[in-house]
Amino acid sequence: MSLDRVLNAASVAIVGASRNPTKRGYQAIKTLLDQQFEGKIYPVNPKEKSVLGFKCYPKVSDIEEPVDLALITTPARTVPAIIEDCGKKGVKGAVIIAGGFRELGVEGKKLEQEMLEVGRKYHVRLIGPNTSGMMNLKNNLNLVGIRDVPKGDIALVSQSGNMALSLITEASVKSQKGFSYYVGVGNESDVKFHEYLEFFGNDPDTKAVLMYVEGMSEGRKFLQQAYRTTLQKPIILLKSGRSAAGKQSAGSHTGSLAGMSEVAHSAFERAGIIVIENPDELFPAAECLSSLPPIKNNSVAILADGGGHATIAADILTDLGVRIPELSKKTQARLKEILPFTASVRNPVDVAGGADADPSVFADCAKIMLNDHEVGGLLIVGLFGGYGIRFAESLTLIEEDAAHRLGKIVRKRNKPIVVHSLYSSKNTHPIELLRYYNIPVYDSLNVACKCIGVLAERGSYLNEYHAKVNFVLNWGAKAKPAGRKIIEDARKYGRRLLLEHEAKALLRLHGAPVSEDKLATTAEDAVRFAREMGGQVALKIVSPDILHKSDVGGVKLGLKAEDEIIRTFNEVIDNAKRFKPDADIRGVLVCPMAEPDLEVIIGTKIDDQFGPIIMFGVGGIMVEVLKDVSFRVLPISSVSAKKMMEEIRSAPILDGVRGNPPYDKKALRRLLVLCSDLVEAYPDIQEIDLNPIIVYNKGARVVDARILLKEEN
Amino acid sequence: MSLDRVLNAASVAIVGASRNPTKRGYQAIKTLLDQQFEGKIYPVNPKEKSVLGFKCYPKVSDIEEPVDLALITTPARTVPAIIEDCGKKGVKGAVIIAGGFRELGVEGKKLEQEMLEVGRKYHVRLIGPNTSGMMNLKNNLNLVGIRDVPKGDIALVSQSGNMALSLITEASVKSQKGFSYYVGVGNESDVKFHEYLEFFGNDPDTKAVLMYVEGMSEGRKFLQQAYRTTLQKPIILLKSGRSAAGKQSAGSHTGSLAGMSEVAHSAFERAGIIVIENPDELFPAAECLSSLPPIKNNSVAILADGGGHATIAADILTDLGVRIPELSKKTQARLKEILPFTASVRNPVDVAGGADADPSVFADCAKIMLNDHEVGGLLIVGLFGGYGIRFAESLTLIEEDAAHRLGKIVRKRNKPIVVHSLYSSKNTHPIELLRYYNIPVYDSLNVACKCIGVLAERGSYLNEYHAKVNFVLNWGAKAKPAGRKIIEDARKYGRRLLLEHEAKALLRLHGAPVSEDKLATTAEDAVRFAREMGGQVALKIVSPDILHKSDVGGVKLGLKAEDEIIRTFNEVIDNAKRFKPDADIRGVLVCPMAEPDLEVIIGTKIDDQFGPIIMFGVGGIMVEVLKDVSFRVLPISSVSAKKMMEEIRSAPILDGVRGNPPYDKKALRRLLVLCSDLVEAYPDIQEIDLNPIIVYNKGARVVDARILLKEEN
Repeated sequence: MSLDRVLNAASVAIVGASRNPTKRGYQAIKTLLDQQFEGKIYPVNPKEKSVLGFKCYPKVSDIEEPVDLALITTPARTVPAIIEDCGKKGVKGAVIIAGGFRELGVEGKKLEQEMLEVGRKYHVRLIGPNTSGMMNLKNNLNLVGIRDVPKGDIALVSQSGNMALSLITEASVKSQKGFSYYVGVGNESDVKFHEYLEFFGNDPDTKAVLMYVEGMSEGRKFLQQAYRTTLQKPIILLKSGRSAAGKQSAGSHTGSLAGMSEVAHSAFERAGIIVIENPDELFPAAECLSSLPPIKNNSVAILADGGGHATIAADILTDLGVRIPELSKKTQARLKEILPFTASVRNPVDVAGGADADPSVFADCAKIMLNDHEVGGLLIVGLFGGYGIRFAESLTLIEEDAAHRLGKIVRKRNKPIVVHSLYSSKNTHPIELLRYYNIPVYDSLNVACKCIGVLAERGSYLNEYHAKVNFVLNWGAKAKPAGRKIIEDARKYGRRLLLEHEAKALLRLHGAPVSEDKLATTAEDAVRFAREMGGQVALKIVSPDILHKSDVGGVKLGLKAEDEIIRTFNEVIDNAKRFKPDADIRGVLVCPMAEPDLEVIIGTKIDDQFGPIIMFGVGGIMVEVLKDVSFRVLPISSVSAKKMMEEIRSAPILDGVRGNPPYDKKALRRLLVLCSDLVEAYPDIQEIDLNPIIVYNKGARVVDARILLKEEN
Repeated sequence: MSLDRVLNAASVAIVGASRNPTKRGYQAIKTLLDQQFEGKIYPVNPKEKSVLGFKCYPKVSDIEEPVDLALITTPARTVPAIIEDCGKKGVKGAVIIAGGFRELGVEGKKLEQEMLEVGRKYHVRLIGPNTSGMMNLKNNLNLVGIRDVPKGDIALVSQSGNMALSLITEASVKSQKGFSYYVGVGNESDVKFHEYLEFFGNDPDTKAVLMYVEGMSEGRKFLQQAYRTTLQKPIILLKSGRSAAGKQSAGSHTGSLAGMSEVAHSAFERAGIIVIENPDELFPAAECLSSLPPIKNNSVAILADGGGHATIAADILTDLGVRIPELSKKTQARLKEILPFTASVRNPVDVAGGADADPSVFADCAKIMLNDHEVGGLLIVGLFGGYGIRFAESLTLIEEDAAHRLGKIVRKRNKPIVVHSLYSSKNTHPIELLRYYNIPVYDSLNVACKCIGVLAERGSYLNEYHAKVNFVLNWGAKAKPAGRKIIEDARKYGRRLLLEHEAKALLRLHGAPVSEDKLATTAEDAVRFAREMGGQVALKIVSPDILHKSDVGGVKLGLKAEDEIIRTFNEVIDNAKRFKPDADIRGVLVCPMAEPDLEVIIGTKIDDQFGPIIMFGVGGIMVEVLKDVSFRVLPISSVSAKKMMEEIRSAPILDGVRGNPPYDKKALRRLLVLCSDLVEAYPDIQEIDLNPIIVYNKGARVVDARILLKEEN
């Protein structure tokens, strides 16, 4: 159901309206009046006749005209009945301010559930509870009580009212940009993050979505929506609650699931979201991405007056993965013509005092530099905008001219300029002019660099978009009847774990390079199978009652001689019986021994937030000690599989070290995609664990496989 | 020689004095007048009779009275003659503004050298060249031209004039702190970083030293001085030029050696320096460290109104390695008494609106929280200082009271408080009061967290100080005559590389666990030695003409049978002769084969900036692919050796993985310290390379050793 009538409400009932100026129910109406809300206001309070000159109604359902939205300022326990009344009236949505729901434990959770059910019954969409409110800056529907919020084209979605206040304050102090909407998500009880995202994605007045998230309940739907939205407009997101103390703080705060898994970061990035970690960078990133063209070639030039800032900027941009290419000979020659002989013109460009008497040299340099097709964007660092303060007041006029020219260069070249100026907080006229032309100005060098960084990140994402997948699982489509039967057979016996030969059979069925094991029920069979296989074999007990085969002496490796095989077959069976006398023993798996080489691991599991995910790592110490693994939310493409292998720190091992030839990465890619396919094909699968897979210079072989099914409903 | 008469000069000659207001030689005198320099000013210019009312002298040596310092504003080529004139006059120091020296190549380098030699001859200490100047804020000796610099107790040492301007501007806008001195180090031609450091270490009016460094020429002396200074007062340092583009930028900027090695960061920290990477954090860190007590137990409490800021702060502090302990039951109970039931009191503490009508609750909470002995410092995040803006003007008065109380709590408990406030830039009276009490207030949550982080880092350093060493190498003290002879023998033949058996002999002499190899000159010897050793042996060619033994078939492993040993002995000799017919073959080394187990690597080398350093890593892929190594500047203590092993990512391997017992880390510690001792004992040693060392659960053995001597002078 669309949120249009909710977020663009033309009429609002204030439940809990009050004549007492210290009460929220008074302040809410006062704010709507002061901020000149363009719609209708209906105070609701059975104890009052009128509030602030408006007729006051005992109940929402007493209002004669239609009502789009209700702001509920009364305590938690009163909410379900009010929602019911709203529902009867045909109200489309309610903003619930009160805390005291899920975040306070069992009782609160029950109350939240009750409220939710009433809302669903009457099709009343609920924002919150436990929220600071919402604002529509277009029709001045301000239900928060923060006044004079700068208007603009950034939609703000926050799970913390204070973070929203921070960002709004920052916008008014440090920029000329502002907001189209603000939504305090609160407990995300009814309306979810992805629904807000869809709404803002479609809103023509929103050019970027800025999000502060502590936890979300529908991670996969969010990714699916984000994937679509980021093709149209940027999403900038800070996700907190990584640390134990942070999780606890978020928990007590919004009752949210702050413990989002470690896959979140890579999943967000894959959906095209700009993920921010330093809160200082959050609003500036949104400011830049909402108003400047992205950088298409990940390459930036730095323009400075004096070396220090340029040197630091080069370090930070390099850490961010942005290229700082040497300028072309032609560009360097042109710069030399206008700069003093002490200037450096390679990149960073240091005008070396060449601007002290004439700061318009920055516009001259910018024009030349952005003309270089190797340069995708420009970072100006130092004093620009403050030459009038630092040197002589008359320079301000020259800076104004330069600002006009810089603004036009951005438009003409469609390449962004970001400015660091230590006079940023002085808001000089040249700085105001730059901002007018969408050239942001920051006093933080770090923030200015990050802004260039996110413009490059966005450009690169849009360039590589074809490589993405849309986070939609196509359940069952690729399943095979024989595969379904393997799972059904296990289910028949109430087993959640497929036996090793069953798991391998399922893998083999879909083309995985699995060893050609055979199940022997007698020692003679085992000998015969071993002879057919040639070389050494391993024997492994097969029993639904024995999950950890090695621990009970159920696995024996490197056998060849007939008598050895017979003796070991019996030993393995005996060990199993000793472990569990009535064990259901299906036989002994005879497996040809794989040639030793590099071991890798592939695993899938179901993540609480995102659903099925996959993991890849190089086996042994790399995974166990160094936790050197990469994750993806399923399904994955072959390109994603390739990137997973490139992302781990031990990636060079796969390419061959010490003069060895490279390992067969194509075989591993196929195996990763195959695991992704299997999880899609068989919705019963909870976990796949291929450990180890031995990879060779040519080919790979799954040596051990474990597949766990979901609990049956 | 002391810098006292230079940095505290009571009289200054301005060489290049001018009547033209656009010239530096005019501005310098004007600034001294405007800023009320307490000493004497002597303009020098042969073409002028007087400047700004002062008598103008043709040469410095024409001045009748004594002159402490000369500011030279004339071009590079004029400088050596002026210094000579200064020297004849007995001037103690000169500040050389001009660029055009080393940073411009060979010609400039020559000029710089000439200038340096004149200065040395006449004992004139030189600041710069290529500097923005220096300032003494105590006697208003302002030779920079930045006006109204806030005074205070931070000494600023910067290799970039613009970074100095940034930091000074930031101080005046965002704090009540300021500077005792500023020195623009420029090319660091004569006076070095460590000399400034020594001076400011001894200056009673300086409480912290803030440094921006692009490169330094005497890294080890700097560490030695820093090690002493940081026991008395904190040093805060940002080192730029890490990236290729940054290095190039720094190079063109100050002609400094920006390419400081990757050991710098750990060496700086070991000397007790607070190393900063984000320039936003540089001044705030100095502000806090100069005026607040350090945190003694690395444990911090967070106090917030609303969860968002607290959650992010908890994440950032956790990333910084600061503990956020749960508060004691008693503390929690006391907080509950004064906070609403929705408040969270574990840590972070969220007053949950409890301050909206009475922000003095922050002072109440702070008192209770800092009373908890588990809490070493307090971070307040959110709106404090702006409740009067956000809610009702009258709250400002309550905040003022709270600010007074917070200030007194810091003094009484000797524990720091740092405040994040989104109203920081409004400079409200409560915020001014906090700053008056040395409680800094930041609008950046990230910066506020970092400030708590550096206070904790400083406290931890001072606690653990006993574990440090002083970076002084005690050349030769531990050498042994037999060791000296090994090196002399190699020198005698003009060899820089010790032969394997010589390197091992040197190691063995100092107690290293080296295999008991024997040098065989005949196949019969080899057989006899192998028999005495028992087990398998390796044979390795010994020839000063063959450096890469394996490459020429000079190493054979795993030999046991007599005939095999004889055959292989001859083969190894033949291979050597085939490689180089006239090779000087000393024989074949018979080495008992070491049991395979975990391989580690220890190496030493001479770093350009810091002199001898040592490296440790787990062998093979960990070092080669993952570059998983730790570094220390030599000498190292046993405690440092332990930390080196703990720092690498693969450290858990040493503790035993997959249920294996731990490896003998004590044996490796001894070996690390022994290598440190060897480098000290034998100043001839350029590099030691022990690769591999095999470490066991008990003991370790150096399997291959390589020692390279320095080039002879």
